[in-house]
Amino acid sequence: MTGKPALYTSLSPALLHLYDLSNSVVVIIDVFRATSTIASALYNGAVSVIPVDSVPKAIEISERLGCIAAGERDGMIAAGLQYGNSPLEYNREFIGNKKLVLTTTNGTRLLQMALDRNASSIIAGSFPNLSAVCDYLLRENKNVVMGCAGWKDRFNMEDTLFAGAVISRIKDAFTIHCDSSLMAMMMYEQQKNNLIDFAPQLTHYHRLVERFGLIEDIRYCLTPDLAPVVPIYKNGELIVD
Amino acid sequence: MTGKPALYTSLSPALLHLYDLSNSVVVIIDVFRATSTIASALYNGAVSVIPVDSVPKAIEISERLGCIAAGERDGMIAAGLQYGNSPLEYNREFIGNKKLVLTTTNGTRLLQMALDRNASSIIAGSFPNLSAVCDYLLRENKNVVMGCAGWKDRFNMEDTLFAGAVISRIKDAFTIHCDSSLMAMMMYEQQKNNLIDFAPQLTHYHRLVERFGLIEDIRYCLTPDLAPVVPIYKNGELIVD
Repeated sequence: MTGKPALYTSLSPALLHLYDLSNSVVVIIDVFRATSTIASALYNGAVSVIPVDSVPKAIEISERLGCIAAGERDGMIAAGLQYGNSPLEYNREFIGNKKLVLTTTNGTRLLQMALDRNASSIIAGSFPNLSAVCDYLLRENKNVVMGCAGWKDRFNMEDTLFAGAVISRIKDAFTIHCDSSLMAMMMYEQQKNNLIDFAPQLTHYHRLVERFGLIEDIRYCLTPDLAPVVPIYKNGELIVD
Repeated sequence: MTGKPALYTSLSPALLHLYDLSNSVVVIIDVFRATSTIASALYNGAVSVIPVDSVPKAIEISERLGCIAAGERDGMIAAGLQYGNSPLEYNREFIGNKKLVLTTTNGTRLLQMALDRNASSIIAGSFPNLSAVCDYLLRENKNVVMGCAGWKDRFNMEDTLFAGAVISRIKDAFTIHCDSSLMAMMMYEQQKNNLIDFAPQLTHYHRLVERFGLIEDIRYCLTPDLAPVVPIYKNGELIVD
């Protein structure tokens, strides 16, 4: 047996309780689009991103702290908020030196679950910060749970592909005895040169592109290392590690 | 839009509640080894298989009905039972014209969940009855939920591969808007000529082979059409459709 730390993948928030988070780094994965947007905002100079689980809470905090309130419900800007969940909105001119309060459908909820289950640390991952996440996990050398946000507790392909991308790069440094991780890695290896062409087969693509025309968002969210920072959760905020 | 019935895949019992079972055929999948054993016993002439969720219940029913009580907990014959969960035990000489009461770790529990959620009909599937299951689903032409039993609510690869094998064959007759089903099919397509060689990478293989030496069980459970019957649940028993 090796002394390597363990790595597991939780394919849905409804499966997160199966894993021991208390000694683990939990990577929150919501590729379309929460964790892509968080990386984008922080890379472009946001002071922090405050993730909250409801629209009223986002409005309350943004009024109290004088910061930007953003978020979507079912893919549309939620009533009472000014900005959506597109990573492309959060360029440096707009978000630099500002705080962002963000509420999303799936990613924020998973982050709260990881907090409730005493995760040792929580970071946000997506393709735009793939290499940064891998470097962080290798440097920490602790147990890892890759936490896919999914869609309303259903498995989704894009979050799994990102988990697989990370595992594909860092697997030699971890003990992996987990069929979910093996599957994620194999799916990623099969599609890695083809991610954007593969996207039209995903259920989430239909919600985002056919209903809202967000093809540029899809491309951004599936492109590695456009926003090379590690968002880490500290005292209620995601900040750059 | 087409008028085809819908097909979904539930990757774990903990996700089954996300799907509407009330107008669906639910395929219970527990490749290693409950549903392989059920197909084997029925193909070899068992009158029926009575699935129960506890060892005491198995003993009680077997004493009352004078039938064979079998089952395992964590891969070993459970205390108080005479037979295990190997499909190879249930040859025609032994099981012909007998009733079998079977309790297993994961498959029986999933079947009970499908009953509780009012599945329209429930059948048992594994590689030994792959073609028979596909023929049944095509003939019924109703909505389908492929229900993977997993391992203590965790995703497992072998159940997913069987779901993928079915989907790969019958997909043209169904509307499939489900990333789990897409993933299952792609995993199967990638490994279909290689299932037995792939098995050593699966967590369940280690439990069965390294701890219990059950390599022949693994081969049986991954080989298509050795037991071409459809076990269907009626009045508390699985019988041949």
